[in-house]
Amino acid sequence: MSKIAWIGTGIMGRSMCLHLQDGGHKAAVYNRTKAKANDNVEKGARWCDTPAEATKDAEFVFSIVGYPRDVEAIYFGDDGILSTLSSGSVVIDMTTSEPTLAVRIAEAAQEKGASALDAPVSGGDVGAREARLAIMVGGEKKTFDRVKPLFDLMGQNIQLMGPAGAGQHTKMCNQILIATGMIGVVESLLYAQKAGLNQSEVIDVVGKGAAGSWSINNLGPRIAKGDFEPGFMIEHFVKDMGVALAEARRMKLSLPGLALAHQFYVAAMAQGLDKGGTQALYRVLAKMNGGE
Amino acid sequence: MSKIAWIGTGIMGRSMCLHLQDGGHKAAVYNRTKAKANDNVEKGARWCDTPAEATKDAEFVFSIVGYPRDVEAIYFGDDGILSTLSSGSVVIDMTTSEPTLAVRIAEAAQEKGASALDAPVSGGDVGAREARLAIMVGGEKKTFDRVKPLFDLMGQNIQLMGPAGAGQHTKMCNQILIATGMIGVVESLLYAQKAGLNQSEVIDVVGKGAAGSWSINNLGPRIAKGDFEPGFMIEHFVKDMGVALAEARRMKLSLPGLALAHQFYVAAMAQGLDKGGTQALYRVLAKMNGGE
Repeated sequence: MSKIAWIGTGIMGRSMCLHLQDGGHKAAVYNRTKAKANDNVEKGARWCDTPAEATKDAEFVFSIVGYPRDVEAIYFGDDGILSTLSSGSVVIDMTTSEPTLAVRIAEAAQEKGASALDAPVSGGDVGAREARLAIMVGGEKKTFDRVKPLFDLMGQNIQLMGPAGAGQHTKMCNQILIATGMIGVVESLLYAQKAGLNQSEVIDVVGKGAAGSWSINNLGPRIAKGDFEPGFMIEHFVKDMGVALAEARRMKLSLPGLALAHQFYVAAMAQGLDKGGTQALYRVLAKMNGGE
Repeated sequence: MSKIAWIGTGIMGRSMCLHLQDGGHKAAVYNRTKAKANDNVEKGARWCDTPAEATKDAEFVFSIVGYPRDVEAIYFGDDGILSTLSSGSVVIDMTTSEPTLAVRIAEAAQEKGASALDAPVSGGDVGAREARLAIMVGGEKKTFDRVKPLFDLMGQNIQLMGPAGAGQHTKMCNQILIATGMIGVVESLLYAQKAGLNQSEVIDVVGKGAAGSWSINNLGPRIAKGDFEPGFMIEHFVKDMGVALAEARRMKLSLPGLALAHQFYVAAMAQGLDKGGTQALYRVLAKMNGGE
């Protein structure tokens, strides 16, 4: 059993850390808002006042926070992870963040004689709770092999994609698919409604064939019911799309579909839908087309 | 067993008509290119030199041809279906065509004391061959019920969606999903390639979760292998998108994602990819981004 540090016990991180605790690992936890670590502390995790304190004795340091600037702060800031990271240990950032930042963390870890993985996930709060996350990993094979038994406690579809940053890049591929696909979902259902069709019946017939996708089959029915509550929040999705566009720009790659999706989601935020689910994009295009 | 007429024995129609023949129905067939009806004639179908001749004694008249203008010609032209359609019979147009044209055909059939269904399909040549098509139907319930046993010989997911035109509208919903989704597939795989990832590995990890779709899981691997052969041809897809955009315009519905997809597919045709598969969109965006 290993000593782990867990930085970030939000809705995702809390469940993921609990799986490691349930697996018998000894956890030290830190979170910006202390109350959100209650579940973990109740199950025996040691509360720490700073990332540095949690990191001090840990062999594996996991992090999953909100934005790249938060990742930057918990790694490079005062009392950050890198200030107390010991030689031979591993840092694993599971935040969806910038590939270039993942490379910087890996380099900084190496200078300390430690190793790093970037390992963003897909599957949402339900996937985290049920330990069914997809985990997309960047880093060295031998580090991956060392952490793999811990990943196995949190997820099911766990792949090493390449060197540092490759996990983040893969997550960007994931988000590009979802973002542009959501425009199709929304436009298709708007067309259905305007043409006098029953949206649920349309989803039923088109969702099983070549037009089928996770989004139309899972978020489509929510749109049809007028349910815009978040599985995944628009404000986080806009962050991810921003990272993907910036990386694409850096690589000199033009992605017009992603850019269009990004702009529509920015419009969603302009309409106060920041904390709505990604399917609330429907309301943006409905409103644009004279609806409510 | 019924007397049927089958107009259009292209790659789809041929298989679909054969299923009806195998079901014991007596077929009269017409096709612009006679040789393409050989399979049906060898199995006992009677060749006819015009749609009118095939229609004369038929209780059920099926059609599946290329473009709306072809539908117009075989129904309303000289020696067309409507010239010999008898009272009490049913016309079923299975071409992906204009909803407004479906309504015109239904009205013309009614004037003859006959009935009509619009019943476009999804599932491609494989679905047609294996009788696994999705069939999206517009028309009256009692007509649908009469034709349903024949549809059952061709497909599996058969739904009455509403009055005349509703089948075509539903097919448009299907195509809108595919078109906009394909931009996501292509941009995601371009990003993967540019970021140094293995495209097949990316498909493997993202295709099982919230980013999963029929397109990424079936056409993605073909893109990764450089296989741009048609499952469904770009020139037909551009036709469908044109219909959807025209109908949306008529209904005062703005669909920016579909418009973007349409323009990229027009660019594909500008690059000579008319007869390529829909996944050849990849080459358009690759070329736009400085590749080949």
